[in-house]
Amino acid sequence: MVLVAARNPLNIGAAARAMSNFGFSRLRVVNPYQVAFREAQSAVGAAGLLADAQEYESVAEAVADCTLVVGTTAGRGREMAQSLRRLESGARLIRTRLKSGDVALLFGSEKRGLSNDDLSHCHWLMRIPTDQGRGSMNLGQAVAVCLYELIRDAKSAGRTEKILPATAADLERITKLLLDALQASGYSKQTPTADAQARIRRLILRLQIPAPDVQSWLGFLRQILWKVGSSQD
Amino acid sequence: MVLVAARNPLNIGAAARAMSNFGFSRLRVVNPYQVAFREAQSAVGAAGLLADAQEYESVAEAVADCTLVVGTTAGRGREMAQSLRRLESGARLIRTRLKSGDVALLFGSEKRGLSNDDLSHCHWLMRIPTDQGRGSMNLGQAVAVCLYELIRDAKSAGRTEKILPATAADLERITKLLLDALQASGYSKQTPTADAQARIRRLILRLQIPAPDVQSWLGFLRQILWKVGSSQD
Repeated sequence: MVLVAARNPLNIGAAARAMSNFGFSRLRVVNPYQVAFREAQSAVGAAGLLADAQEYESVAEAVADCTLVVGTTAGRGREMAQSLRRLESGARLIRTRLKSGDVALLFGSEKRGLSNDDLSHCHWLMRIPTDQGRGSMNLGQAVAVCLYELIRDAKSAGRTEKILPATAADLERITKLLLDALQASGYSKQTPTADAQARIRRLILRLQIPAPDVQSWLGFLRQILWKVGSSQD
Repeated sequence: MVLVAARNPLNIGAAARAMSNFGFSRLRVVNPYQVAFREAQSAVGAAGLLADAQEYESVAEAVADCTLVVGTTAGRGREMAQSLRRLESGARLIRTRLKSGDVALLFGSEKRGLSNDDLSHCHWLMRIPTDQGRGSMNLGQAVAVCLYELIRDAKSAGRTEKILPATAADLERITKLLLDALQASGYSKQTPTADAQARIRRLILRLQIPAPDVQSWLGFLRQILWKVGSSQD
């Protein structure tokens, strides 16, 4: 990742933190505002990533060993006769290209973004799909969003890290106890019909009780059943 | 979006800015550190969004009218017996649920995240897929990444906002001029064969010349052709 002419130490630090969060390690800076860069490097918690950041005097030198150079922009690009890709599609291309060589992702200064000269070093440009007229993002946040899209796992969108659901046997025990409790409490006047049982069972199934909670529910119901049973005496 | 016990005015402001960037408008804050909240509200460039932020004394009140409450976490959740979804899959569920009701997305304080009590109000939890052991994100950046995933357009991943490519006729004119220039410069000794012409044409096609650049290339080649033509005299 290449930061060009960044001026705010908090933003430089935030960019480095996002890189660390998402597992990126190589930070290059071009003509940083020196005071800001030194301050960011000396900040508490600044990762080795910031200390190891390489400094360059020009974009050309910073990207020299890269086989793809991508500039980020709030939405110019057409005037530059350069392709402008939305982050979703740009990141896909970058991921593909990363398999065969190094890719430079350029971010401009907080105030003006990348200059025309900076942009001329880019094979194509990429923009974060912000709301119309509200394109200007905070530098640290823009970096975080771009890097997230790069590590985002499309395949995981279908998966869920769920806790285990209760087994059918557990649910049946809960159903039976609830039926007993309802009967003991006078909600059901006589021994429940098969229909009534099925209705309660469906209500329990729809709760999607997690396995770790089964013992708690059984405990509640046993206690209630004991109480209403004893109060009938 | 609900910020619980946020302490840093810069983070509150950054969260509001990300909401504005991605077209979200309703910000609720629970027990903010008052000095920070007032400072964030009075900051230059604070959107109407911050001024309109509603303040609550408890999470229960802040989410009362929502039909889904989602907590963000750096990766606990299993201990809470609550489902933990990756952002990619969680955001998909949230988008679906937003069609039928309001969804609350909870972010905790910078230091400790959401408390166990806060988490108990959540239907399920969501985590940003950060690198292992580097889960803790800056609040403003975490908000930006989550909101980006919510507005992200999966369908756009295939599309590219490209500039128009040159027409075949333009490319043929360029090919002809290059052939002439090569012949005039002595690169090709005699009138090029059909094979040589085809080879040059393929080279030109692989350049993918954009339509706005055609006139420049024609101009360069005409000038070169004129120069090598006149130097032969």
